[in-house]
Amino acid sequence: MMKLYYSPGACSLASHIALEESGAEYETQRVSFKGNEQRSAQYLMINPKGRVPVLVTDRGILTESPVILGYVAQAFPQAKLADNDDRFAFADMQAFNVFLTSTVHVAFTHVFRPTRFADGDDAAAAMRAKAGESIDDYFSLIEAKLADDRPYVHGDGYTVSDPYLLVFSRWLDRSNLGPVEKFPLVAAHRRRLEDRAAVRTVLERERVSV
Amino acid sequence: MMKLYYSPGACSLASHIALEESGAEYETQRVSFKGNEQRSAQYLMINPKGRVPVLVTDRGILTESPVILGYVAQAFPQAKLADNDDRFAFADMQAFNVFLTSTVHVAFTHVFRPTRFADGDDAAAAMRAKAGESIDDYFSLIEAKLADDRPYVHGDGYTVSDPYLLVFSRWLDRSNLGPVEKFPLVAAHRRRLEDRAAVRTVLERERVSV
Repeated sequence: MMKLYYSPGACSLASHIALEESGAEYETQRVSFKGNEQRSAQYLMINPKGRVPVLVTDRGILTESPVILGYVAQAFPQAKLADNDDRFAFADMQAFNVFLTSTVHVAFTHVFRPTRFADGDDAAAAMRAKAGESIDDYFSLIEAKLADDRPYVHGDGYTVSDPYLLVFSRWLDRSNLGPVEKFPLVAAHRRRLEDRAAVRTVLERERVSV
Repeated sequence: MMKLYYSPGACSLASHIALEESGAEYETQRVSFKGNEQRSAQYLMINPKGRVPVLVTDRGILTESPVILGYVAQAFPQAKLADNDDRFAFADMQAFNVFLTSTVHVAFTHVFRPTRFADGDDAAAAMRAKAGESIDDYFSLIEAKLADDRPYVHGDGYTVSDPYLLVFSRWLDRSNLGPVEKFPLVAAHRRRLEDRAAVRTVLERERVSV
């Protein structure tokens, strides 16, 4: 059985939701960031990068949110979590997911964990200021993508990009860079996601507020 | 015909090499970072994110290095640029590529373009110091992955992860965080790559030193 290592409310939330929606049998293991458990010797044996999510499969482990999301979508095609039969559409979806990973997530990390990028309070303040501007720019791009009455990131069809965007629309509020209502279509997307049964199940399991 | 937008020596080098090795017909368009061309109105029409690489296909554009690399490998399977028939192996390859994008590349950006993350000389110096430590840690992980006489990142078989790693082993020297010989297996991997005909062709086309 597959096993997901996650930390409550972290970016692993997206993989957790994708697994719940896939219909797969899986189990979960919570990793406490507050206890710095992701840097423990035991966890580094599983993932030397010291990060979540990790998906343990019968072939070995997979890391990085876009990879786990794409893998789950392809391994459980009946759940229709991606346009699996169209190589271009799948790649285009992954381009959005990699943008969230390499650009949006990274900007938030400067707010939540500035010491990953520089020591000192002055540097942290300077990075937080710039991250706020960048995050506004990035959500403006996402807002434009959601225009034209698209219910989901890639149009009419739900994909794994949707729970992944949910991670960051929730972080907007958590970081005090929001409220998410600054971006009305992103806010509507968030409400649409939080109405899904699988999303509510996972948020309750992670015990983070809905 | 496909068209690649690249900037000399930037991370787009990997996509450029993959295309050259794929056997595909393609053309290239240079984007000058020195002229800030990637922020021009004309370029933002192509890629609103203002970054390279961009691959123009007959279906539309693709962005983000791991996505373009994976797409080229799958679209031209006869070139054997990935383990296309093994979903887990392909995902594992992409996990390495996404790690390079989201973590290694981001660390180098703090060195080369600190103003993306904070304004001010003090913040830049603090970020550069931390990035140096992080880059050492990341290359130590990569060095460990190359152990056991593996000629390529994923073992005996060349994949698109190899030219992507080459981008960053070259940046080690360019950033003065090297020399790359601090990591002997990474250095040997770099030499092995720079001996490939396609790699030499692309380095010459980009007119960056070999």
